[in-house]
Amino acid sequence: MSGNKAVAYKGPGKVEIIDTAYPTFELQDGPGVNPANVGRKVPHGVILRTVTTNICGSDQHMVRGRTTAPADLVLGHEITGEVVEVGPDVEFIKVGDICSVPFNISCGRCRNCKERKTGICLNVNPDRPGSAYGYVDMGGWVGGQAEYVLVPYADWNLLKFPDRDQALEKIMDLTMLSDILPTGFHGAYTAGVGVGSTVYIAGAGPVGLAAAASAQLLGAAVVIVGDLNDERLAQARSFGCETINVGAGDPGDQIEQLLGVPEVDCGVDAVGFEARGHGHGSDAKEAPATVLNSLMSITAAGGALGIPGLYVTGDPGAVDDAAKHGSLSISLGTGWAKSLSFTTGQCPVMKYNRQLMMAILHDRIQIGKAVNAKAIGLEDAPRGYAEFDAGAATKYVLNPNGYVKN
Amino acid sequence: MSGNKAVAYKGPGKVEIIDTAYPTFELQDGPGVNPANVGRKVPHGVILRTVTTNICGSDQHMVRGRTTAPADLVLGHEITGEVVEVGPDVEFIKVGDICSVPFNISCGRCRNCKERKTGICLNVNPDRPGSAYGYVDMGGWVGGQAEYVLVPYADWNLLKFPDRDQALEKIMDLTMLSDILPTGFHGAYTAGVGVGSTVYIAGAGPVGLAAAASAQLLGAAVVIVGDLNDERLAQARSFGCETINVGAGDPGDQIEQLLGVPEVDCGVDAVGFEARGHGHGSDAKEAPATVLNSLMSITAAGGALGIPGLYVTGDPGAVDDAAKHGSLSISLGTGWAKSLSFTTGQCPVMKYNRQLMMAILHDRIQIGKAVNAKAIGLEDAPRGYAEFDAGAATKYVLNPNGYVKN
Amino acid sequence: MSGNKAVAYKGPGKVEIIDTAYPTFELQDGPGVNPANVGRKVPHGVILRTVTTNICGSDQHMVRGRTTAPADLVLGHEITGEVVEVGPDVEFIKVGDICSVPFNISCGRCRNCKERKTGICLNVNPDRPGSAYGYVDMGGWVGGQAEYVLVPYADWNLLKFPDRDQALEKIMDLTMLSDILPTGFHGAYTAGVGVGSTVYIAGAGPVGLAAAASAQLLGAAVVIVGDLNDERLAQARSFGCETINVGAGDPGDQIEQLLGVPEVDCGVDAVGFEARGHGHGSDAKEAPATVLNSLMSITAAGGALGIPGLYVTGDPGAVDDAAKHGSLSISLGTGWAKSLSFTTGQCPVMKYNRQLMMAILHDRIQIGKAVNAKAIGLEDAPRGYAEFDAGAATKYVLNPNGYVKN
Amino acid sequence: MSGNKAVAYKGPGKVEIIDTAYPTFELQDGPGVNPANVGRKVPHGVILRTVTTNICGSDQHMVRGRTTAPADLVLGHEITGEVVEVGPDVEFIKVGDICSVPFNISCGRCRNCKERKTGICLNVNPDRPGSAYGYVDMGGWVGGQAEYVLVPYADWNLLKFPDRDQALEKIMDLTMLSDILPTGFHGAYTAGVGVGSTVYIAGAGPVGLAAAASAQLLGAAVVIVGDLNDERLAQARSFGCETINVGAGDPGDQIEQLLGVPEVDCGVDAVGFEARGHGHGSDAKEAPATVLNSLMSITAAGGALGIPGLYVTGDPGAVDDAAKHGSLSISLGTGWAKSLSFTTGQCPVMKYNRQLMMAILHDRIQIGKAVNAKAIGLEDAPRGYAEFDAGAATKYVLNPNGYVKN
Repeated sequence: MSGNKAVAYKGPGKVEIIDTAYPTFELQDGPGVNPANVGRKVPHGVILRTVTTNICGSDQHMVRGRTTAPADLVLGHEITGEVVEVGPDVEFIKVGDICSVPFNISCGRCRNCKERKTGICLNVNPDRPGSAYGYVDMGGWVGGQAEYVLVPYADWNLLKFPDRDQALEKIMDLTMLSDILPTGFHGAYTAGVGVGSTVYIAGAGPVGLAAAASAQLLGAAVVIVGDLNDERLAQARSFGCETINVGAGDPGDQIEQLLGVPEVDCGVDAVGFEARGHGHGSDAKEAPATVLNSLMSITAAGGALGIPGLYVTGDPGAVDDAAKHGSLSISLGTGWAKSLSFTTGQCPVMKYNRQLMMAILHDRIQIGKAVNAKAIGLEDAPRGYAEFDAGAATKYVLNPNGYVKN
Repeated sequence: MSGNKAVAYKGPGKVEIIDTAYPTFELQDGPGVNPANVGRKVPHGVILRTVTTNICGSDQHMVRGRTTAPADLVLGHEITGEVVEVGPDVEFIKVGDICSVPFNISCGRCRNCKERKTGICLNVNPDRPGSAYGYVDMGGWVGGQAEYVLVPYADWNLLKFPDRDQALEKIMDLTMLSDILPTGFHGAYTAGVGVGSTVYIAGAGPVGLAAAASAQLLGAAVVIVGDLNDERLAQARSFGCETINVGAGDPGDQIEQLLGVPEVDCGVDAVGFEARGHGHGSDAKEAPATVLNSLMSITAAGGALGIPGLYVTGDPGAVDDAAKHGSLSISLGTGWAKSLSFTTGQCPVMKYNRQLMMAILHDRIQIGKAVNAKAIGLEDAPRGYAEFDAGAATKYVLNPNGYVKN
Repeated sequence: MSGNKAVAYKGPGKVEIIDTAYPTFELQDGPGVNPANVGRKVPHGVILRTVTTNICGSDQHMVRGRTTAPADLVLGHEITGEVVEVGPDVEFIKVGDICSVPFNISCGRCRNCKERKTGICLNVNPDRPGSAYGYVDMGGWVGGQAEYVLVPYADWNLLKFPDRDQALEKIMDLTMLSDILPTGFHGAYTAGVGVGSTVYIAGAGPVGLAAAASAQLLGAAVVIVGDLNDERLAQARSFGCETINVGAGDPGDQIEQLLGVPEVDCGVDAVGFEARGHGHGSDAKEAPATVLNSLMSITAAGGALGIPGLYVTGDPGAVDDAAKHGSLSISLGTGWAKSLSFTTGQCPVMKYNRQLMMAILHDRIQIGKAVNAKAIGLEDAPRGYAEFDAGAATKYVLNPNGYVKN
Repeated sequence: MSGNKAVAYKGPGKVEIIDTAYPTFELQDGPGVNPANVGRKVPHGVILRTVTTNICGSDQHMVRGRTTAPADLVLGHEITGEVVEVGPDVEFIKVGDICSVPFNISCGRCRNCKERKTGICLNVNPDRPGSAYGYVDMGGWVGGQAEYVLVPYADWNLLKFPDRDQALEKIMDLTMLSDILPTGFHGAYTAGVGVGSTVYIAGAGPVGLAAAASAQLLGAAVVIVGDLNDERLAQARSFGCETINVGAGDPGDQIEQLLGVPEVDCGVDAVGFEARGHGHGSDAKEAPATVLNSLMSITAAGGALGIPGLYVTGDPGAVDDAAKHGSLSISLGTGWAKSLSFTTGQCPVMKYNRQLMMAILHDRIQIGKAVNAKAIGLEDAPRGYAEFDAGAATKYVLNPNGYVKN
């Protein structure tokens, strides 16, 4: 119990397995830890032995060097684990429980948590509302791509699975509850997806696919997924979505061929600020507002846009000065003329994860298969990062302690 | 009954009283009438003798020459009138009824109307969803700043006042139901204003003041109105709002002095694309995204922005090329980090007008006083336009048929 | 075109095919027509040639003689038809359109219709809010179990199917849009069913089965249907529901065996006032409050009950005096202690039918199969009524004009 | 600090001041404490020195001997206090904070708390969901009509007032945040009260008056309060309500005289199971369903009923056998025909109290004055109980530690 292998960011394009300290019930100083959080007592926390921990597209922003993440920051905010130690203030979570960890850390005591807005908890990140494990500028909570991880406010944060054996059997689905399934669901839900909706989802990465599967679960009539990557689009078709390659022509025209009209009821942006221009194939340049502008054009009057894709306040690697400062050139008038509404921000995972767990446990959604989940060893994380960055239509699930039996 | 005096746009900066034809139950050709609407039969319409018809800030966009409005277009979409003739298909509205006319024309038969989205009716404007009286590119329905006006789909569109005498007594309040009161209310409502909210409203013109009064009616704890025009800010203070002159310092700092924190729960953009930069006094240049960017900064994480202020798809008079094409430079990352949501578009008046009428009739809101309503003759409309454009803290109500007794 | 065969109520237990007049654009006097509606002009109506018209459980209340329905009242409020004539005021519906008719007749012009509460329209029934075709005390609009039927306010009421061939191909599903699918959906929706919910539906008749299929479409994790009729329960199992025979033991115990807990999140009453006591097999006596009391016991704290099952203000055939006056003995304290909420009343069909049509057209729900729809000739209606009343697990669809090809 | 004077129930009709132990961070055995809760550790709790603690109508149910409450049960669930000791697990609440205590105790860790349903917390009452201080069958948490009281899960439960001086200045308003203001607000809110609504509130006791003031805050056009007690009705008129004495004639007729129609949009039951029949003056017999049946008659089709008035599962003192078992004779058909909806149960105080605090602090509501709050010494509690039971139009506020300066 004295060591803890973990996946760390080492510099642009580079992740490595490093040895770190086994967690204690105190937030220690380390790379990326907010000074105001150093030494913070965590008697309300538990230590988890990691069951699964997934590589996320938002980790790639750091790994690509698009952020100020410091070297040796331990990555990982998509965590499922078995409780091996509980802090003195923990009352309901017990050793041996297998639990999903919402990627947003929240206290369960502030105004926002009380209002279910756990993505913008006021008490966990000294810099601003909202926090996450293993992420730059998010308070410094240590990432979970490791053998062990500390989870604060455990009675509040953790979603306990009702049965251990059932949980391990469905682990490749349940592991998606920590982030991408609720995040995709939030995208679909805030886009107004309901029974009979027509939906367009920009982006066929794991979040886009999760949004697509969520839209189906919400009763959508037609779910269309757009991307430039044909392998990912094939993945979307594998569970009944329609697809369009946005490099092959105007999305509105392609939607019209599918639906008879060039518009959908609901639009989801599962891409975010690293979007690339449509219509130029794989050489497309970054065009950070292109997805949003396209969605406003594609979404029918009265519709809504769910925007789980990340937009940042500053991006040193951006294509132009405005984008470097987070300013995007948006055709707002198009949206205004159509009375569109927009929902942005991190998904408040706790608003959705219990219900989605129920849907998984009762076989109403096969999210592991939908996103092509693949378990690999912790030591294979660098390869997973690289392949994912290269566009593999795969969701990499790290398996640091051998819980997942292939 | 053979003539019909009306207020017409004659060219940039110029409105005049002209003689037009008395309306019939058919949409005649004329300036700004969509060719596809010419000759449209309106057996479901009524002819109103105008009781009041207000000059609106959005009329000013046309009058300033910022649109493609043709000369002789009859202005006016804020109409209250007495029914003098009913078409053969009208069943429930009767001659003698005094009614408020929602500025958005809607059919009451399409999907959007059935979903209460009457601001984007599919059947009244051949060009796109949504329509209005006396407005460029809105289908060509003749404006109501006139002695008489045709209202189509009367059984659906009209809000009948329960009692004639009571209606005329409260006419300076009730006249605001055709547009600015519901529009301001929609801004506040979609900004999430509820009991105990803190609210910032950008803009102290009539819509901003209506949003402020609406926020009070919705139970807001504190309503702060910002503008550069001190006379309009005084108007806001007259009914209990806090105010800040945005030219006098950072709005966040000023809000902090009022609330102890630099942020509010809810933000309303009652300005739109003709916004001027903060901090520069009356010489401020247009800065079309400045209000939105400021609101994202001022609104607390988890908040919402209601955006009744107009944004356009193209603006030939804009300060730069991007704005000419309706593209604004928006700090979306700021909003995303705070999980803000945004609601844009025309207010669907019928969603709110009956309830607001009840609030007026039972003395729960004094909207006429709040916006400093002032009745003037139809012939004084040119002066009203000019004074309003010059920043008068007055809402001009035209009184073409002498119903309003001063 | 001079005649119109129709199914009429002839007295308790008796329905017959009669010859009636071909409809005109005026509501004629006849059995069950409210005097105040006699002679009402219907220029806004269309005449439909009936494509399908279903026998409904609520028709049985009349046929069993539990109401004051007069002899010769033409039955039928579940209507799908082809437009053969349009009234002079009809603008958007055209001859040849194939349309679903919401069973609640509504005007599209009153406050309630504008608020989407079309089940309680203020203008169609002189006695009280709300109306329906072919139903006692509902205004006297002639029933649609006939070759032809008049539909008033056609532009508002009718849901046009986008494609004729596709409509006829899926007609055994689409025919359920006139009543039972929206009604069952309303039950599930108002019971709070959403993604991951556990749901109990009391009653495996067509509305109960439609509620069950709707709950699945809404993403429910587990749908449990209870009834005393094993054949109907088998029908529920055929599309993936769990079932319990309420005569075989306490429903809570049986739910516990299925879920591990004796309670569900959401309860739907698809039975209504003609409920029979649990636990007594087919000899069970009527016990009009038993379903509601059982649902309060079975539904977890914080849950909701959707109550599409009909409760009446007076029931001459009731088991006791209180029930004869519509008073039921309800354990309200049980519900109060659990903070339950309750939604009663007719489903406002237009709130849901378009979306459900989309779900059918895109193969998201197989409602015809779920309720075991079976087309029979108009002349076979008496047999259909009798078999349905005897408990057949079948939804009878009348096919008066041969549109349905078996 | 070794003693703690408190108000205790001593038997039917009898309350006395007794000496009890100063609280510790453990739930001790005592009258009414659930055995499963005895010895429960409360490191997450704080000890409050009581600032104010109000006598509530629901306390009267116990004092009248209508429950199984044991002698020496310490009463009081309406508590405002100053923190004098914090348990070891308390992180955000500090000694010296002045806080409102929601009457429903909740853990902030269970599914229901996470869904904001704090009135039915799963972890605080071993018998069933939901708990309260000083109340029979609610888990045994000691009442707060005392000098000191223990509050568990303090970081979650407590609402801290932002400024001590301001809090003490407005304490006669803020003291209503622990129960009756949110409870009345919940009644109005769940009855669908919004801008422009017409509202009828049954009962002019403190909860009814709080519902009335809340309805005004929510923007209601007209608020009508009904009762048999003229003194309480005068209190309602004092802040702008209309009133009817339900003993003076049919409520529908009286409403029609006020509104022109015999129905309102929204109905609130602020009476509950100890209702007395209308029309009989002060000798009226109990008629436990009379309020609900009357509200169904008075509320317009499409309306809603908020039911904060308590209904119980058993009532040994009831007028008949059915009512003794909690069964009420309800005219459900009346409600069903009108498509009414119903919300029952304890108010989840935390859903509303922060917003209502803001409304009080910014002078948007004068709730202390509305309910005629009157501070009396702890030792005067017996008199307060007696006068309140006798129908005094007064809300008694106990002042055990002299914080309230008259």
